[in-house]
Amino acid sequence: MATLRIFCNAEFKDSALRMLQAGIGPHELLLPQRPGDSILQVAPADPAIFQADIAFGQPDIESVLKSERLRWLQLTTAGFTRYDTPEFRAAAAARGLVVTNSSSVFAEACAEHVFAFMLAQTRQLPLALQSRWSGGWNRTNEVRRLSLCLRNQRVVILGFGSIATRLVELLAPFDMQITAMRRRPRGDEGVPTVTPEELAGALATADHVINILPDNAASIRFISKERLGQIQRGAVFYNIGRGTTVDQTALVESLQTGHLAAAWLDVTDPEPLPEGHPLWTVPHCFITPHTAGGHRNESETLVRCFLENFQRFVSGSPLHDRIM
Amino acid sequence: MATLRIFCNAEFKDSALRMLQAGIGPHELLLPQRPGDSILQVAPADPAIFQADIAFGQPDIESVLKSERLRWLQLTTAGFTRYDTPEFRAAAAARGLVVTNSSSVFAEACAEHVFAFMLAQTRQLPLALQSRWSGGWNRTNEVRRLSLCLRNQRVVILGFGSIATRLVELLAPFDMQITAMRRRPRGDEGVPTVTPEELAGALATADHVINILPDNAASIRFISKERLGQIQRGAVFYNIGRGTTVDQTALVESLQTGHLAAAWLDVTDPEPLPEGHPLWTVPHCFITPHTAGGHRNESETLVRCFLENFQRFVSGSPLHDRIM
Repeated sequence: MATLRIFCNAEFKDSALRMLQAGIGPHELLLPQRPGDSILQVAPADPAIFQADIAFGQPDIESVLKSERLRWLQLTTAGFTRYDTPEFRAAAAARGLVVTNSSSVFAEACAEHVFAFMLAQTRQLPLALQSRWSGGWNRTNEVRRLSLCLRNQRVVILGFGSIATRLVELLAPFDMQITAMRRRPRGDEGVPTVTPEELAGALATADHVINILPDNAASIRFISKERLGQIQRGAVFYNIGRGTTVDQTALVESLQTGHLAAAWLDVTDPEPLPEGHPLWTVPHCFITPHTAGGHRNESETLVRCFLENFQRFVSGSPLHDRIM
Repeated sequence: MATLRIFCNAEFKDSALRMLQAGIGPHELLLPQRPGDSILQVAPADPAIFQADIAFGQPDIESVLKSERLRWLQLTTAGFTRYDTPEFRAAAAARGLVVTNSSSVFAEACAEHVFAFMLAQTRQLPLALQSRWSGGWNRTNEVRRLSLCLRNQRVVILGFGSIATRLVELLAPFDMQITAMRRRPRGDEGVPTVTPEELAGALATADHVINILPDNAASIRFISKERLGQIQRGAVFYNIGRGTTVDQTALVESLQTGHLAAAWLDVTDPEPLPEGHPLWTVPHCFITPHTAGGHRNESETLVRCFLENFQRFVSGSPLHDRIM
């Protein structure tokens, strides 16, 4: 086989880069002159991509479309909104460019992150950990009364991909009543699954509503004022999908009126959320700064998953996590 | 059967008291004139206990020993240190007084609480939730690098009763390497189990050390300076057992030197921990005020478990959660 050239513009630690270099064997690694700031951001355009057969990272769209040699692009993220346009899809299809993402890299961490949110909420950790500042043990009885067990509670999961699949596995020992929603249920979800049209009934009895919807034309503001109103009073809302899927003004209102007991958000619209945004200060709203998918050794996991796909590419097998 | 008299000095909500009254049917409920402050505290002595066949709550020891009619005492806690003296055991045995506790009431909540601690730690929630105060999204990359997945990590559980049994069930989907320690392994723990003498090897490779030891003569300061030193550098220590089992001075030192990455404590010695105690301010120490077993409807769960045992008592069957 001819030597393949792999362009990688992800900002990896040296150990991950060495792993990548070793893993591609005799093939050639092309690095940009100026690496990007974050695996979540588009890096600046770099001419090295025009020599590449394969790109791995977050290359700018224009360069991808102009690079005539490129046959496969693996993104270092799970989300791929910026590439998900009719123009890009058409160009990729016309050229036979295969596009994969790294969703399996982030599924475990994302599932564990939303699970951490759920348990922090039911065990009232934000309040309980304040005992440090509010006079020690004074609030014991209040915290105990507000705490809950997850066991036997009802949960609705919006969006059913690799994260939801893993979350359902993690929740299994809690004997919860789980309902999933996806646009086109396949019957292999392993839990009762409804369409968006059938969702209102499930929301009406939910204790926990977990939003894992990706960002696309159909999901924009899917969590509208009307849908928030359909959720059982006192339920908790979680978002580890995309911030654009939520009407945030209506969400703030739901928290202000106490219709929702709490909201735990790893994503917002926009990101970063600007200073002074009401979501920062409305009671019972807990925000982590888009860290759900992150984990120590993330770079190594990204490289390992790329290398698995690289072996498949070399041997002509179908690639994992293909999105186009 | 003659009418039984049940003395209850637990501070229950009206709904739980009504449930108790309804559940005992034709038998008689004796309430103290002045209820206690908390289900965790000993209530003041009350003469009503001397008319009772059964006591349910936290009666004072002297009254229990003096009440000649009493045949069964069910405590509303899992811990029973104050009753666990040679004198009390001897007196109970001599009189044929059966003593049960409410450990099964608290096992689920305690197991979920320590699980919440573990996930809050691995997902770095205390740091991530500070994004609100520290300039929004600035720390995203730092938090992502510090975050972990629980999956495949190593955990050591000290003390193997109903809480540990449930915790092992909850952790099953995470494919963790679990080692338990109990004084006399029985072989039915379902996970590799070592004695205290064999513990050092397990601590040396642990990522998470979970202390669920009860308070007794053998467990006092079991987590000594020496044992803390045996734990792998960078591990996390959790305590939902009893504060007396830990050398807190050595624990503070382990956190100050960074030998332990963090400590999550639901119990301390004493409780409340006094203002100015170094555990309040040492970095990476997170304290909840003895709320691990608490849950909404705790009173109802306590009453339900008592009533199950009451039916057993009436029919002459062995009681659950018997401790003496």
